[in-house]
Amino acid sequence: MASSLNKFRLALVQMAVGANKTENLQRATVKIQEAAQNGAQVVSIPECFNSPYGTKYFGEYSEIIPDGPSCQALQKAAKDNKIYLIGGSIPEKSDGKLYNTATVWCPEGNLLAVHRKIHLFDIDVPGKITFKESETLSPGNTFTSFDTPWCKVGLGICYDIRFAEMGMIYRDMGCKLLVYPGAFNMTTGPAHIDTLVKGRALDNQVYVAFASPARDNSAEYVAYANSSVASPWGEIVTQADETETIIYTDIDLEYVQTIRNQIPISFQRRNDLYSVHNNLDSKPETRFNQTYQLESKKVAETFNVDELGKKTVFCRCWESKKFPLCDGAHGKHNQRCGDNLGPVIITKNE
Amino acid sequence: MASSLNKFRLALVQMAVGANKTENLQRATVKIQEAAQNGAQVVSIPECFNSPYGTKYFGEYSEIIPDGPSCQALQKAAKDNKIYLIGGSIPEKSDGKLYNTATVWCPEGNLLAVHRKIHLFDIDVPGKITFKESETLSPGNTFTSFDTPWCKVGLGICYDIRFAEMGMIYRDMGCKLLVYPGAFNMTTGPAHIDTLVKGRALDNQVYVAFASPARDNSAEYVAYANSSVASPWGEIVTQADETETIIYTDIDLEYVQTIRNQIPISFQRRNDLYSVHNNLDSKPETRFNQTYQLESKKVAETFNVDELGKKTVFCRCWESKKFPLCDGAHGKHNQRCGDNLGPVIITKNE
Repeated sequence: MASSLNKFRLALVQMAVGANKTENLQRATVKIQEAAQNGAQVVSIPECFNSPYGTKYFGEYSEIIPDGPSCQALQKAAKDNKIYLIGGSIPEKSDGKLYNTATVWCPEGNLLAVHRKIHLFDIDVPGKITFKESETLSPGNTFTSFDTPWCKVGLGICYDIRFAEMGMIYRDMGCKLLVYPGAFNMTTGPAHIDTLVKGRALDNQVYVAFASPARDNSAEYVAYANSSVASPWGEIVTQADETETIIYTDIDLEYVQTIRNQIPISFQRRNDLYSVHNNLDSKPETRFNQTYQLESKKVAETFNVDELGKKTVFCRCWESKKFPLCDGAHGKHNQRCGDNLGPVIITKNE
Repeated sequence: MASSLNKFRLALVQMAVGANKTENLQRATVKIQEAAQNGAQVVSIPECFNSPYGTKYFGEYSEIIPDGPSCQALQKAAKDNKIYLIGGSIPEKSDGKLYNTATVWCPEGNLLAVHRKIHLFDIDVPGKITFKESETLSPGNTFTSFDTPWCKVGLGICYDIRFAEMGMIYRDMGCKLLVYPGAFNMTTGPAHIDTLVKGRALDNQVYVAFASPARDNSAEYVAYANSSVASPWGEIVTQADETETIIYTDIDLEYVQTIRNQIPISFQRRNDLYSVHNNLDSKPETRFNQTYQLESKKVAETFNVDELGKKTVFCRCWESKKFPLCDGAHGKHNQRCGDNLGPVIITKNE
């Protein structure tokens, strides 16, 4: 295995999932090992890999994170195989609530990230597919990315992939790979999953992976399977059929950069006209002045004329490094809000 | 033709475009008439329909809007056929600059909207396609939508379709149909146009139309053609081949609502976590002080100590009605940017 920092091998384990949790964990363990033996450095297993997919099962199969048996099996698998492991998802029990939750483990067996599905799968296509995760599950409230030696990875679960904004947030965080463990069904799978995987990849010029369980036509909820990976050129580069299988993709970060140079939409975006905001942390990220902490209620700054020099320049933007005095970089500071608001200048005749 | 307010017929005129402008206009006129005779109520012709596509042609073929011969022909065609006509685009000459501009005409022959291509087509895929519109063109700076009796329509030109944010802005404006006259080439056309058209449609649950010229293998820039329309279910419902042709799609607004009810992502979006901002009209909306116009380069305000009273309060936000002096409403003013930035106060001992 080449250990270049520009390339790594991603495996999606499209495993069969049944009603026996112990068997599910054993099967995951065996398949993860097989993937690692075939050179995978990052492995994802599917959504809800320890349980049948259905609201009536989530409670019974749920576990606490990270101490439940499913997490313990994942931790061991990551460590034994020295891989980054995206543990698909499991029903998580916490504070009397249930979540659909992915855990991510590093090669040392440490828990790297936890993602609770943000967008619950509540849809109603009459005569085809009706499902309401929100009957039993609660949604997560955070984005989840994690670092690998190769690149930052953004994480979503299944229905999360329908929300383009989330992919854009990950793009803006610098993720070059988005992974969505998921289990689309026999209606929306054939209709939408290719377009979603390719679309997120093309629009954000990243790799996108969708990791499904294998198809089981005898299950109550039949997963479409067809796990797939799209390249930043927007084409499906690897795709499973419906059977239990593992698919491998060599993720090439130089290729990401090549595409971004060829079709430079990341520079061509018109942020003066539109922008996607991460409402969770856009504030700390865009404020230059990290050291100057205004108290939440003390918004004013008072100076006496005696304190002023011959010419005193007061900032009217947070961004200045010398705030509340001005460092002169007005042009830059107000680009974010689009104003051309410069300082107040007080002059004094000596 | 049923005149239901929930349905209308859209025609995309995939016309051949050559070097003779007069012939181009005549051809457009004939094809638009044919479309209307076949029941089209909204018609779009392709990008750059009056001129070969190439930076060296734009100047020669450019016209002023709305008085040039191309606009005159479009106006007459809209009025004669009593249709809404999206006049693809033409090279527009204005104030010594050139733009790639679409005009929209109503059945009475009035100019309803003008869209200047926002995102210029500058790409470089070595050995395949290199093009740089910005060598001769300037970009537009506004979104463009227009109302029809059936729904609001969002308008972009070709490369604009690559920018997902723009489609989302139109979705948020309430558009149910997005129309992109365009001319993808033989590299990016086969690779991307289907994914882009389907992706915009699926993500925003709207109809999306892409109107190309016919393919001319003898042209310098060979358009891929394959004009197409995707439904809000994210499938291509109508698609041309490469020849000169007109394709018709019955746009069904009830179907838009059906899809939105079945997969209710518009309600499920997590605006607490992310949001797409229209930076053009959030400012006028949120800026209280509409009368105080800072000049674009004069960002500073200077006061001499002698001008100050015993206590002078200077705003550090645009929002104040008394800007640059402060009206005291700090709490409210900085909500938009999330800062708690209040005024600078200068006190003076008498």
